[in-house]
Amino acid sequence: MKGLTRRQVAVWCGALAAGASARASVDADSAHALLLRTRGLADTRAYELVESLVTEVGARPAGSPNDARAVAWALARLQGLGLSNVRADPVALRTWQRGPAHARLSAPFIHPLVITALGNSVATSPDGLDAEIAYYADFDALKGEAAGSGPSRAQGRIVFIDEKTERTRDGGGYSRAMLARVAGAVEAARRGALAVAIRSIGTDQDRIAHTGAMLYDAQVARIPALAVSVPDANLIARLHARGHTLRMQFNLQANSAVAATSHNVIAEIPGTDITDEVVLIGAHLDSWDLGQGALDDGAGVGIVMAAAKLLLDAGRRPRRTVRVVLFANEENGFDGAIGYGERYKHVVHQLVGESDLGAGAVWRLRSRVRDEALPVIRAMAEVLGPIGIADAGNAAAPGPDAGVLLRRHGWPVVELTQDASNYFDVHHTDNDTLAKVDATTLPQNVAAWAVVAWLAAQSQTAFGPLLPR
Amino acid sequence: MKGLTRRQVAVWCGALAAGASARASVDADSAHALLLRTRGLADTRAYELVESLVTEVGARPAGSPNDARAVAWALARLQGLGLSNVRADPVALRTWQRGPAHARLSAPFIHPLVITALGNSVATSPDGLDAEIAYYADFDALKGEAAGSGPSRAQGRIVFIDEKTERTRDGGGYSRAMLARVAGAVEAARRGALAVAIRSIGTDQDRIAHTGAMLYDAQVARIPALAVSVPDANLIARLHARGHTLRMQFNLQANSAVAATSHNVIAEIPGTDITDEVVLIGAHLDSWDLGQGALDDGAGVGIVMAAAKLLLDAGRRPRRTVRVVLFANEENGFDGAIGYGERYKHVVHQLVGESDLGAGAVWRLRSRVRDEALPVIRAMAEVLGPIGIADAGNAAAPGPDAGVLLRRHGWPVVELTQDASNYFDVHHTDNDTLAKVDATTLPQNVAAWAVVAWLAAQSQTAFGPLLPR
Repeated sequence: MKGLTRRQVAVWCGALAAGASARASVDADSAHALLLRTRGLADTRAYELVESLVTEVGARPAGSPNDARAVAWALARLQGLGLSNVRADPVALRTWQRGPAHARLSAPFIHPLVITALGNSVATSPDGLDAEIAYYADFDALKGEAAGSGPSRAQGRIVFIDEKTERTRDGGGYSRAMLARVAGAVEAARRGALAVAIRSIGTDQDRIAHTGAMLYDAQVARIPALAVSVPDANLIARLHARGHTLRMQFNLQANSAVAATSHNVIAEIPGTDITDEVVLIGAHLDSWDLGQGALDDGAGVGIVMAAAKLLLDAGRRPRRTVRVVLFANEENGFDGAIGYGERYKHVVHQLVGESDLGAGAVWRLRSRVRDEALPVIRAMAEVLGPIGIADAGNAAAPGPDAGVLLRRHGWPVVELTQDASNYFDVHHTDNDTLAKVDATTLPQNVAAWAVVAWLAAQSQTAFGPLLPR
Repeated sequence: MKGLTRRQVAVWCGALAAGASARASVDADSAHALLLRTRGLADTRAYELVESLVTEVGARPAGSPNDARAVAWALARLQGLGLSNVRADPVALRTWQRGPAHARLSAPFIHPLVITALGNSVATSPDGLDAEIAYYADFDALKGEAAGSGPSRAQGRIVFIDEKTERTRDGGGYSRAMLARVAGAVEAARRGALAVAIRSIGTDQDRIAHTGAMLYDAQVARIPALAVSVPDANLIARLHARGHTLRMQFNLQANSAVAATSHNVIAEIPGTDITDEVVLIGAHLDSWDLGQGALDDGAGVGIVMAAAKLLLDAGRRPRRTVRVVLFANEENGFDGAIGYGERYKHVVHQLVGESDLGAGAVWRLRSRVRDEALPVIRAMAEVLGPIGIADAGNAAAPGPDAGVLLRRHGWPVVELTQDASNYFDVHHTDNDTLAKVDATTLPQNVAAWAVVAWLAAQSQTAFGPLLPR
């Protein structure tokens, strides 16, 4: 004590005591995280929830009557779980409505084609379209054909983009291929095409076509856009390789930009002492109109709802408020995420996470937080390592809605990457049904999200803000 | 030589010489069978043929324009292979033509259903049908409800038969379940049902419905008949289990009994000394209108054509005539097999074999021959054992067309049972495409059929006749 004033001693002792208390609370929080992990691995609620959603609601495209039923389902279920502040925030949007669509090769032989309109596609005339196919081996081949420098093969034809989707664990194959879907119509129309047809962005070999959003450019003609199933794309490729001239005949009806309202559904576990800060775990409630939206994103809805219930029942209230958000219209415009961000932009978000990559086991934890918070991420990884989840750095690419919030508001994110090896077999198809949900991998997801939400909520360190990009 | 006359000696020496000659020829035939086996395992022609058929013709329901194109394809290809007596025998038939069909659950919630009409189904009225579902857990549950003893649950309703198809290597699960498809409408109509809907007779979990032939009874009302995809059947079962009253709304259009002509396509390797006896290796050329008929039965077509070409090119002509028969309309009436039997009923058929269980590897050899011929079957099995094919007795259940010929004419049969574990995932669906054909298992099939045909053609023992059943 030599050389210290009484005041110095008092401060020093206080600091020591505070440090000891902080360490004690960190230890207790870690112990609770282990409890959540153990309980999560035995938690079958996520499957029960997705089963209920797809059975009692089914497909729920944003703004549709079924979407409204999904909102009612979510409100009732979240209230039933005992969560607080359950509410539905309205989201105004413009929806796209699928009409009938059918297609066949009309030359060199008549072959029926299994197709689906891409989301946002304009309709053909009521009589449809019959034109020669201009075959492109992939999207790069189309883009590589300089627009405006002489007549394009696309001119007056239906551009077919034979872009293949690589099967990958992290979904990277999909991310690389999807540009053909999103931007194919614009690139084809720039070259004078009448329509664009793509090989489905999917990894299956089934006679089922994959839909998904595509975009137009206000400066470029809007042409109809569709996807053919993978076996049909294989057929087109084989006939093309034989040197045949191919023609496609199709009719595709749709309504665009129909005004509608959906809702973000929200529920909370109120925090104890940092109650105005939010740890958000989300998924999206809407689905494409095809299938049942079981993997996309019924599974995510079940996982985050079950994780919140697990937290609620585990006996300790979090310091920050844990908020479940079921976003509206992820599939075709991110209106829910955008609206949420606007409405809550002044609320401190300690963390945003989203489960939207199917029902596979989580194998990777990635974050996007301030460096000062990385020790907390490492603590999460220590808890999650034994259940197969590896710490993989601070450059997360989170779910689509979380990505919107990261980019627009700089809110920190955590990504729990699921094994997506089989996800793109059924993604955005009729085949996205409960039969494809593996009930055995959901509990590990629930455990992981509960642990992440808990440790983020308890953290003595702020995870953000990050600079918006 | 004591006690023998010169004539006796001469006879004895002659017999010895003949025996030695016979043994020598048997040894040579066995050696040639080994050559066929070796060459067959390296023969990639079967895949090339099925690829050509499904790419250049596609689906080919009997009596359709594509069926006529398939006949032309087969004639050209068989001639191109250098086979003899290539011809098309006309077969008069009555076809069933699919029209548009769509369905949804209209209660307790609106759920679209993926359905397909069963072959031969009558149409609904143009306005379709909307009625309550009477759920039966399987076909036995329906049959167990005695007709005529008081009002049935089926009365005035749509009977739903939730018959499950077991996955089996030998296709036995399909054989057990298919009665629900074939006879479901009659049993439902007997109890006053308005229509029958069945869980698809299939082992997949895909949103694709399985068609297939159903039959009416002249004494019982003809009601529309359809299959729903397995995930849709799961949905119906889940809603039923929740205690809901279900309604189905559907519209199904079709034309029945349209007069048409198809053809059995035939080609031969003429025999050397027993040229008027026939060893028949067959498959069926027609397919259902859904899919490409790649597994059912493009694979079989490719296999038996390639086996004949292999025999032709191997340097030795068979003693009996080896005949490839591509039967017409196996799928919906067996008109081709029946017509073939009538036309060739006076021709001795040493053996009839048919490849019609997909593209899986052969794992079992079964025969239905006279006991005296069993040593020849054992000789076949000795050659085929090393390539994974086990001798499994003399109670074969051959392919459907071969079965017709066995029952009607008592012609001996051989069954080369393929591994059908995955076959009923895609059988009779949109999903029966080239993508499901495993090119690596076809050569073993080709080898097996070439060996069987060769040894049957060379046999010093007649395989039949058997008594017609």
